Amino acid sequence: MFSMEKMLNDNINAFKLTMIGDLMKYFVRYGEIGIKSRKIRSKFEKKLMENIKAGLDCEFINDNGRIILLTQEDDNTVREVLDRVFGIVSYSQIYETVTDKDKIAHLVNTTLSDLIGQGKFNPETQTFAVKCRRVGEHDFSSQEMAGYVGSVVIEQFDAKVNLSNPDFRIYIEVREDKTYVYFDKIKGLGGMPVGCQGKVICLISGGIDSPVAAFQMLKRGCSVILLHCDNAPYGRGTVEKVLKHAEKLRRYSLGEEIKVYSIKYGKYLEYVQKQAPPRMTCVLCKSGMYQSAERLAKKEKATAIVDGSSIGQVASQTLDNINASRYHCNLPIFSPLISLDKLEIEDIAKKIGTYEISIIPDGGCAAVPKYPETHADLKLTKNIIEKINQKEILNEVSDSIQRIDI
Amino acid sequence: MFSMEKMLNDNINAFKLTMIGDLMKYFVRYGEIGIKSRKIRSKFEKKLMENIKAGLDCEFINDNGRIILLTQEDDNTVREVLDRVFGIVSYSQIYETVTDKDKIAHLVNTTLSDLIGQGKFNPETQTFAVKCRRVGEHDFSSQEMAGYVGSVVIEQFDAKVNLSNPDFRIYIEVREDKTYVYFDKIKGLGGMPVGCQGKVICLISGGIDSPVAAFQMLKRGCSVILLHCDNAPYGRGTVEKVLKHAEKLRRYSLGEEIKVYSIKYGKYLEYVQKQAPPRMTCVLCKSGMYQSAERLAKKEKATAIVDGSSIGQVASQTLDNINASRYHCNLPIFSPLISLDKLEIEDIAKKIGTYEISIIPDGGCAAVPKYPETHADLKLTKNIIEKINQKEILNEVSDSIQRIDI
Repeated sequence: MFSMEKMLNDNINAFKLTMIGDLMKYFVRYGEIGIKSRKIRSKFEKKLMENIKAGLDCEFINDNGRIILLTQEDDNTVREVLDRVFGIVSYSQIYETVTDKDKIAHLVNTTLSDLIGQGKFNPETQTFAVKCRRVGEHDFSSQEMAGYVGSVVIEQFDAKVNLSNPDFRIYIEVREDKTYVYFDKIKGLGGMPVGCQGKVICLISGGIDSPVAAFQMLKRGCSVILLHCDNAPYGRGTVEKVLKHAEKLRRYSLGEEIKVYSIKYGKYLEYVQKQAPPRMTCVLCKSGMYQSAERLAKKEKATAIVDGSSIGQVASQTLDNINASRYHCNLPIFSPLISLDKLEIEDIAKKIGTYEISIIPDGGCAAVPKYPETHADLKLTKNIIEKINQKEILNEVSDSIQRIDI
Repeated sequence: MFSMEKMLNDNINAFKLTMIGDLMKYFVRYGEIGIKSRKIRSKFEKKLMENIKAGLDCEFINDNGRIILLTQEDDNTVREVLDRVFGIVSYSQIYETVTDKDKIAHLVNTTLSDLIGQGKFNPETQTFAVKCRRVGEHDFSSQEMAGYVGSVVIEQFDAKVNLSNPDFRIYIEVREDKTYVYFDKIKGLGGMPVGCQGKVICLISGGIDSPVAAFQMLKRGCSVILLHCDNAPYGRGTVEKVLKHAEKLRRYSLGEEIKVYSIKYGKYLEYVQKQAPPRMTCVLCKSGMYQSAERLAKKEKATAIVDGSSIGQVASQTLDNINASRYHCNLPIFSPLISLDKLEIEDIAKKIGTYEISIIPDGGCAAVPKYPETHADLKLTKNIIEKINQKEILNEVSDSIQRIDI
């Protein structure tokens, strides 16, 4: 049953909204979170709505496996927000009427006139099709309703039907005594609502890969905390880049804060350069980063570390080096880009707006030796780490960790 | 300089091939491996050619950042093989002549006639464009050559030019005294040549995710060894599915063997069920799998473990559970699907042909408790693992490990 009464019960605020002005409605469809147990599903739905609300002045009606969003914001604003909320599989602006053939036909006619006026459908050059779905008992079949609406559109606009490959689609969804009409299904980002999967520490460098790795973790619902190991004086300008990256990532983390921490890492690098064989600098650098992230994870109650590793992308990202640099870290390390090509990573970076920031020249890292180890021996690495007393210097460096975004 | 003499020097076998019959030639373009140091690049190029040769009777000329493949196999066979070799960015069947305007025009005319006959270009309904690139000193510019060939095609076939958005493209590549003509650029799989990045142990279950995870590691050049933890009597039919998965994966691992190991894991599960709290079965199962994989890795000299984890895909794939189940494994664990949605994973599975095998009903795992732990506490897990003497039972079970594909 879907009645005004249920709507009232479901969401009194939504009803209030309808009273004060032009109200726009949207179906918001979600995917995987729909197949979970009732309890998890309801938690995820709640988080999804909360996240949308963090970016948009709106209310919701929860309609079994689908959310109806109600807002007075204009369509462009709504799309701009929904396009960056993880957990949405697709969404549609909907028009609503009572389940009555003439009323439905009237609604289709008036909304279609508007869309033709806006240039979104041209009956002179484009074909159309009507698709109808029905829930409940009615004195017509879905096919009859689609046929009826189709004939009205042909009569009114002289439009041509093409059922198999139409340029324009009219969707009719009959639910008991309510009927919804919509004209497009806009693909969402997919994934899960940010904040429903616990916290991860994402190492972020200022380069192309690491912000993309953080984005990928947001996608699967993780709350992201960024940790930048500031190499100064071996690197420069990276802090500013990282702060800009955080701004871009926050656009996809509505409803969940993204903290940014920085650690004065140059001191550790200086120490490593002095104490360890030069070719080991990069392996020991990465090893220290993971362990610094682990310390922050403890403080922030995060349960995993994330980095932008992709096998073989640079000569030093070999399996041997990854193995040696991860050995002393006890938390899981996720590398969502591990199997992606550089071009695939760059494509994502361009879409989310981090690419332009990443390519700002920062001079690279001056601590990289002339001949970095490409196949670190684990046993040897363990010996060096013990000999240079890595733990102690990391403890010292860890004291410098601080938020840089407040 | 590109002359018959250089061709001879480059590859005497290739020259021999040209002597015995109809020779087809292809540009094979590779991406990332082109940007590595000379030494690494040459190693990767060698492996790429070796892998192609494992599937195709052919020879190669290495032409600075591009490989020219020579074969007497027919075009369909060539495409079928090149479409499943990692490391190839794109490829094109090429036609070759000397750098002479009339000879080039003649070559374009004859090959175009063939393609029109095969229905690959229809000058009556389709537009075309000529693109020319040039290396070396010539008495014409690239634009002049393109214009000349274009005018000949217009005259000969009455075809229409559309420079900005043509239906059909004619590529002319002038290299000193040789000129190559081709008509399409077919996208390859990308990635890196399998076998250039060391070995990984991929846990494989018979389900949808794990073969896709293995495929993703092949993509970045890893040699893959499959390990199946056979849950019988808690599971059944999975060994057959895994062997079929291996067959599909081998198609993408030309030049590198894929071994399949199985371990009698039911015994371990039975023990866990008896000794540990029921809700911990799944976490302890996964923990034992990683450690079994680590044992095999030692034997096989592999340096990483791979699984099909995707955060939150099932209630038990939480960060807490991942953390608890990975703690006792000392090798890096890669989860290339960690940030992918189920639908994205299924899309890849369908493309590589493993999906149909994965969905064969196998009854699932009968050891899964009614209420599996979804937020395993690490400390508690460590205690249980110690208490049940996990190491000892894993040692016992490890003795059952054996190749099942020979």
